[in-house]
Amino acid sequence: MKKAVVLLSGGLDSATCLAIARSQGYACYCLSVNYGQKQKVELEAADRVASALGAAEHKTVVVDLGSIGGSALTDDIDVPKDRSDGEMEEGIPITYVPARNTIMLSVALGYAEVLGADAIYVGVNAVDYSGYPDCRPEFVEAFQTLANKATKVGVEGDTISIEAPLIHMTKPEIIEKGLSLGVDYAATHSCYDPDSLGQACGHCDACLIRKKAFEDLGKFDPVLEHLAP
Amino acid sequence: MKKAVVLLSGGLDSATCLAIARSQGYACYCLSVNYGQKQKVELEAADRVASALGAAEHKTVVVDLGSIGGSALTDDIDVPKDRSDGEMEEGIPITYVPARNTIMLSVALGYAEVLGADAIYVGVNAVDYSGYPDCRPEFVEAFQTLANKATKVGVEGDTISIEAPLIHMTKPEIIEKGLSLGVDYAATHSCYDPDSLGQACGHCDACLIRKKAFEDLGKFDPVLEHLAP
Repeated sequence: MKKAVVLLSGGLDSATCLAIARSQGYACYCLSVNYGQKQKVELEAADRVASALGAAEHKTVVVDLGSIGGSALTDDIDVPKDRSDGEMEEGIPITYVPARNTIMLSVALGYAEVLGADAIYVGVNAVDYSGYPDCRPEFVEAFQTLANKATKVGVEGDTISIEAPLIHMTKPEIIEKGLSLGVDYAATHSCYDPDSLGQACGHCDACLIRKKAFEDLGKFDPVLEHLAP
Repeated sequence: MKKAVVLLSGGLDSATCLAIARSQGYACYCLSVNYGQKQKVELEAADRVASALGAAEHKTVVVDLGSIGGSALTDDIDVPKDRSDGEMEEGIPITYVPARNTIMLSVALGYAEVLGADAIYVGVNAVDYSGYPDCRPEFVEAFQTLANKATKVGVEGDTISIEAPLIHMTKPEIIEKGLSLGVDYAATHSCYDPDSLGQACGHCDACLIRKKAFEDLGKFDPVLEHLAP
């Protein structure tokens, strides 16, 4: 069976990405990164999602980005709440973690080399992407080129393929795809600012984007049930 | 004063690289990575080198590559000893840490974004390089392209320049350059398999390469004094 490393944050996108990799016949080696995010509960979600979707393995690697700082996700900076669509479109938000996807893909690349994996799956998404530079197609292409130059298998003329199957999908399309593949979105976690019970706030960008996507499909986001009217 | 992030392993190359960055007028923010290497003593060397060469700051970031494995530098695998030049040239050795330079540069990229740095200095070297794929000019070029796509400053049309000033230098040339800039190589550490006192073994590839380079210059490597006849 072909092997793939799947970057798994525990959120909606990466859960869908894992389901897609599985449906394409890969044994999935999931990789989560404990980068010092305040929303640690997402790592528990990643564990649930990996089990539910039949991952071959799930590793969590510590990469201490908190010591570098620069983001509302790692530092003592308030996460923005209840921003309008227009506000979300205005530039790169404070929840951007500098070079996060570059770092995660790099760790995934090392893991893929060790495993002899054929592919790395990453759930980046350029449509409803919150304005992060490292979620764009040109970023993924540049990482593919780098991967070919950086690795033992690359030198030997082989390729570890960087797969970003969600990159051109809208959030509702991602959810529909995941539902068709049996993803239980109640097990996921996307919120940047969960409460002490680990429940989603319903007001940060991550919550608002997925809430709206479920609404567009005539559904209610299952992780927001505790906030249901 | 312009800022640069300098990747500092504590070895001969990165110490020289720091001295070059300083000589080019940068305030140097040194970054070491505790990636689970067995030769932890190199992190102490990095501290000594950063102080001796006037770094503005020195951070050590934990990136737990030991949990991924695949290298004699992180795993319980013997480091090869007393290999001939011919043996060293034969393919990629077991001391290769999968994607290490990609990961370190990615972390440096995040740090550079947070600092607003203009450049990242990395002491990779394609001449006496032990056969690692991520020490080649095409790797550095691919990382520059990625950095331009991955970052906030890149999106805004600016560049964080990836500088690899040693890439085409021989080991003796590197040492001569460093000596001319006042590098004290006794403070550095390159050995893959130090003894319990942290002293260099004198027999691994890293020791042999630098030992020979000092000999080519008619000198004795100061970190091998305990092994002097």
